[in-house]
Amino acid sequence: MSEEPPTQGSEEEKRTEPLLNRIEGPQDLHELDDAELQQVAEEMRTYVIDTIGEIGGHFGANLGTCELAVALHSLLDSPRDKVLWDVGHQAYPHKILTGRRDRLPTIRQYGGLAPFCSIPESEHDIMGAGHASTSIGYAVGLKEAMRKGIGADGKVAAVIGDGALTGGVAYEALHAAGGLQTPIVIVLNDNGMSISPNVGALSRSFNRLRLNPRLYHAREGVEDRLTRLPLGMGRRIERLGPEIKAAIKAYWAPGLFFEELDLAYMGVIDGHDVHALRVALTEAFEAGRPVVVHIHTVKGKGFAPAEDGGLASMEEWHAAKPHSIVNGKPAAAKPVPVTETDSPEGIERLEKPQPAGSPPQYTKVFADAIVAEAGRDHRVIGITAAMAGGTGLQKLADQRPEQYYDVGIAEQNAVLLASGLALQGAKPVCAIYSTFLQRAYDQIIHDVCLQQLDVTFAMDRAGLVGDDGPTHHGAFDVSYFRPVPNVVVMAPRDEAMLVHLLHTAIAHDGPVALRYPRGAAEGAALPAAPELIPIGEGEVLTEGKGVALLGYGYGVAVALEAAAILADHGLQATVADARFAKPLDGPLCERLAREHELLVTIEENVLPGGFGSAVLEHLEDAFAEAPSERARVLRVGLPDRFVTHGKPALLRAEAGLTGEAVAERVLAAQPFRQPVLG
Amino acid sequence: MSEEPPTQGSEEEKRTEPLLNRIEGPQDLHELDDAELQQVAEEMRTYVIDTIGEIGGHFGANLGTCELAVALHSLLDSPRDKVLWDVGHQAYPHKILTGRRDRLPTIRQYGGLAPFCSIPESEHDIMGAGHASTSIGYAVGLKEAMRKGIGADGKVAAVIGDGALTGGVAYEALHAAGGLQTPIVIVLNDNGMSISPNVGALSRSFNRLRLNPRLYHAREGVEDRLTRLPLGMGRRIERLGPEIKAAIKAYWAPGLFFEELDLAYMGVIDGHDVHALRVALTEAFEAGRPVVVHIHTVKGKGFAPAEDGGLASMEEWHAAKPHSIVNGKPAAAKPVPVTETDSPEGIERLEKPQPAGSPPQYTKVFADAIVAEAGRDHRVIGITAAMAGGTGLQKLADQRPEQYYDVGIAEQNAVLLASGLALQGAKPVCAIYSTFLQRAYDQIIHDVCLQQLDVTFAMDRAGLVGDDGPTHHGAFDVSYFRPVPNVVVMAPRDEAMLVHLLHTAIAHDGPVALRYPRGAAEGAALPAAPELIPIGEGEVLTEGKGVALLGYGYGVAVALEAAAILADHGLQATVADARFAKPLDGPLCERLAREHELLVTIEENVLPGGFGSAVLEHLEDAFAEAPSERARVLRVGLPDRFVTHGKPALLRAEAGLTGEAVAERVLAAQPFRQPVLG
Repeated sequence: MSEEPPTQGSEEEKRTEPLLNRIEGPQDLHELDDAELQQVAEEMRTYVIDTIGEIGGHFGANLGTCELAVALHSLLDSPRDKVLWDVGHQAYPHKILTGRRDRLPTIRQYGGLAPFCSIPESEHDIMGAGHASTSIGYAVGLKEAMRKGIGADGKVAAVIGDGALTGGVAYEALHAAGGLQTPIVIVLNDNGMSISPNVGALSRSFNRLRLNPRLYHAREGVEDRLTRLPLGMGRRIERLGPEIKAAIKAYWAPGLFFEELDLAYMGVIDGHDVHALRVALTEAFEAGRPVVVHIHTVKGKGFAPAEDGGLASMEEWHAAKPHSIVNGKPAAAKPVPVTETDSPEGIERLEKPQPAGSPPQYTKVFADAIVAEAGRDHRVIGITAAMAGGTGLQKLADQRPEQYYDVGIAEQNAVLLASGLALQGAKPVCAIYSTFLQRAYDQIIHDVCLQQLDVTFAMDRAGLVGDDGPTHHGAFDVSYFRPVPNVVVMAPRDEAMLVHLLHTAIAHDGPVALRYPRGAAEGAALPAAPELIPIGEGEVLTEGKGVALLGYGYGVAVALEAAAILADHGLQATVADARFAKPLDGPLCERLAREHELLVTIEENVLPGGFGSAVLEHLEDAFAEAPSERARVLRVGLPDRFVTHGKPALLRAEAGLTGEAVAERVLAAQPFRQPVLG
Repeated sequence: MSEEPPTQGSEEEKRTEPLLNRIEGPQDLHELDDAELQQVAEEMRTYVIDTIGEIGGHFGANLGTCELAVALHSLLDSPRDKVLWDVGHQAYPHKILTGRRDRLPTIRQYGGLAPFCSIPESEHDIMGAGHASTSIGYAVGLKEAMRKGIGADGKVAAVIGDGALTGGVAYEALHAAGGLQTPIVIVLNDNGMSISPNVGALSRSFNRLRLNPRLYHAREGVEDRLTRLPLGMGRRIERLGPEIKAAIKAYWAPGLFFEELDLAYMGVIDGHDVHALRVALTEAFEAGRPVVVHIHTVKGKGFAPAEDGGLASMEEWHAAKPHSIVNGKPAAAKPVPVTETDSPEGIERLEKPQPAGSPPQYTKVFADAIVAEAGRDHRVIGITAAMAGGTGLQKLADQRPEQYYDVGIAEQNAVLLASGLALQGAKPVCAIYSTFLQRAYDQIIHDVCLQQLDVTFAMDRAGLVGDDGPTHHGAFDVSYFRPVPNVVVMAPRDEAMLVHLLHTAIAHDGPVALRYPRGAAEGAALPAAPELIPIGEGEVLTEGKGVALLGYGYGVAVALEAAAILADHGLQATVADARFAKPLDGPLCERLAREHELLVTIEENVLPGGFGSAVLEHLEDAFAEAPSERARVLRVGLPDRFVTHGKPALLRAEAGLTGEAVAERVLAAQPFRQPVLG
């Protein structure tokens, strides 16, 4: 895969050529000694800085895993042995070492390397997840299957960040690994932050450990020598009093949390010392039981602006914008801070600086709107799950910290926290991306909607998100909210309506699901004050005849574009904004169906069970006695497949979710085909 | 509410009258001393044994919480102070103490007391959840709102079982409570088992604690006296070697897990000693920080057959059948063991012994079928989440333990474990009730279907489950699976088809969602060997004309009943079994629509986004060019609201999901109205 020819040159050439260029697969690491492996790691770091600094992509976390990826692959025989990278945004070094070095410059681009690990992309990518906290569960399953003689036996390692460890499913899996005594190695890659500094008790606990330099050295042989003590000795120690406990905890605390779950613990290991990593990992793989290897890495390691600037700089350099680094240094023009557009596991790319006067991001409009709502009513409380920057709630955190919570990567608990707040009379707004809110589906149904609690779900990134790809598209929320009783399901057509609908959602005494897209809004003038929109009422934007285009959320913008094209073809379409998928504006749907020959529904959600499906359900019932009196319905939306990564405009075109594509389908459809073509 | 008149009698009468009869609300407990409170608890236990032994209901857990409910309500001022009962199946004593003593005999019956806590039922029922592991999250939200001055301030206690603590969302909430230092009291009600004996590492840890009699006494003042120790002292202790650690752990281990999460810990307290509970709880409520009060209770306390028979008896008496206890003793005829029909948080009631030759339970058919599949292929592995009895997988556990996992109450990890197994070439079958699988929705979409892994979801209790009510009905799975790409969605019409479809699902190389109802099957002869059903192919059962009844799953039985009634009215309906909701049998739907005037879809799922919606979506597209050539579609299914508790037959009638109701609607519909009535 390398552009270099197989090296046949002199010893001199071999010495000057980067070692990294000789690594075509993990097996090439097996011949190198510790010093050479350390060199490979450092060369790889430079390569990541240069490449990602140029093209943009996940950055800080990948600088932190160079030595770990080298150490793991130097000891393991991948893919028979399995390395599972939680989330996968820390797996660029792994990709480089497993035959994809030269394709790194294509990462996150349409047709290029996937943003996360990807099973179809490489036999070395064992799992393809892009949501956090799942690697341990996968690892337990893989190793348990091996223990049963299914597939080839091998070693299994799961690499998980300290931030991802706050997810309940990670805990469930730790608990299972300990319970089953599945012999896997769990590498806790602890850099003290996920994107933003971690929240919660466990991160404080980890922090205490990291601050203790003694703990950088693995405790040797402790597990082996651990023996049960006669009860009498316990008594004697007991008499020494509780102060002893504090001392013991100070030394042994690192492992206690894990050891209570019956996991062996080793740590804290310097995650940038290949030798130390190899010693620890070798021991861990030989233990024959589940072992947590706690390593400390530096997010942004080797890139001074990230490494030296403290937490704020680490957060800033979680991801790099294109052209943000030149010659290993930040480009002269400081890149746009990523916090406004970042996500916990995905990143946003601003393709170019926005000209003055261009529409704001939906995220920014939401942020300003919720800060205003919170200012008007102290009961309004914003909740995020490790997405303070990405959801815009950071602005609320800055301006009204007492009306803000970040629960960490813990979407289920974000919704439960909201439920409890609502029970006491608060008006919580859970700002969680559409794709991550899937994780709290049971809490939505059972703990919010069944209980009729006053919780608003604000789903940013609803629809196609672009470069982050299939793990991050918000393609399902209309379908998964619509079957749930008691919930209002709404979406704005532009930023002005977002302000109104957020206000409406908060004022409504009951659960509301509000979705809006990633990226720039439509350019509508923002209202001086938000208005209450009547629940379940759509709005006709332009009256026409023959064809009615009924948009939902982003679908309205597509409808308006399509109408403009159709007008050029002599078709004056009616355009309407449904605003609500539930309750649906039944009378509006009926009128549009009665007065037109074709009714096109447009949404950025999969078609099965989506908004168009709601319209169909309503019309079939409403016109039961006179089915011939209604327009036929053409549903436009996302296809029933997982959509790849790439620029949103490209992906939308591929899905037929553009004004042009809709206009074409209208023109090709009965009853317009003959008049238009004839 | 009591049947007793207000006591005006002599001192003698007062002495002989049970103290319990004087408790009309929690405030009546405030005047009693410890001994009297202990007496109330014991009277309440007798009342529960007598009542539930007669009418059936959750049993063991409620015998375990009599003292706890008394202790909490004697100290608190409910509902200003909030007691949150996780799941709610342990809340009968709480209901008795909060004005519902005399209505206990109506519990779980249509129109009677709710099976779990219920917000509309009582101001003392703070939350209405029936799924486990959520009480801590609610409690954090409630107390955080109070801290912000929203609503009246008060104390907040969450009672959670050791089994429920295995759920990831409980851990997320513990983590949040510790992180925020929210001053709530978490009562860990530890009886060593949820329904079946607990699995996993934490339960072993708890078990070690319970076996240590010293730990029954609360450690007094440890928190107060806990001080940081100079580093030198830590060094000295360190030199004492690792054996010290074992001794220290033996004594202090109870708290370490929680203390690492920054929660204070008290325990282990005897949960049947009102005085000890009151001392510990008083201290905990005064702590001004989150405190875990670890209490040990006996499931089935006070009922010898449950208490004395070890774990097996506790499991057997998790719930009691009607008429199973007479005069405080098991009825002469031993009740049917509950394991085959039990659920982790809900119970089943067999109304009467089944006559010989009556149809088997779907659960039993599934159990036999998966045991047979596992016998044919060692790659078939059954996974349950604390529902070994309820799903029938206990049979697999007994016969092929090496092909079986119980992950505890941890649905997300059940699905991840399956994902890992599938990655290695296994053929896992996740047997999880429809209502609980909601909890793993993100894993279904993202970790199974996006990755195209070979996982089968076997959803028992799909549809209305009866007495357990709205928290347990499986009303949404067709709607929430249908939008997900790559998954096959199927349901059998009877027990024979269940055998075939399970076989088909396991043979299919990709994700499959298979749903089937609670309760007795249809009486079809079981096949000698399972057959492969072609994916996406429905089946016409009887040919007729005018009206076609297209059932999905249980809907087919309803269709057949309706057809029989229609035949009496001279209408010979076509009846077909769709078998698949995804991929839908498009050609079959089109043929039925073309050849009939009315097409009725019948399913036991909510209508929005359900099976009927799939049929509509398909037909609208398929007949785009000739809409008048298709039958109108009448969708029959569950309504768009949460359905209450009660007997399934009653609830189905209420929802219009009976042959009679369907026949009536057909007869009332165009185009049959005039010919039939005219």
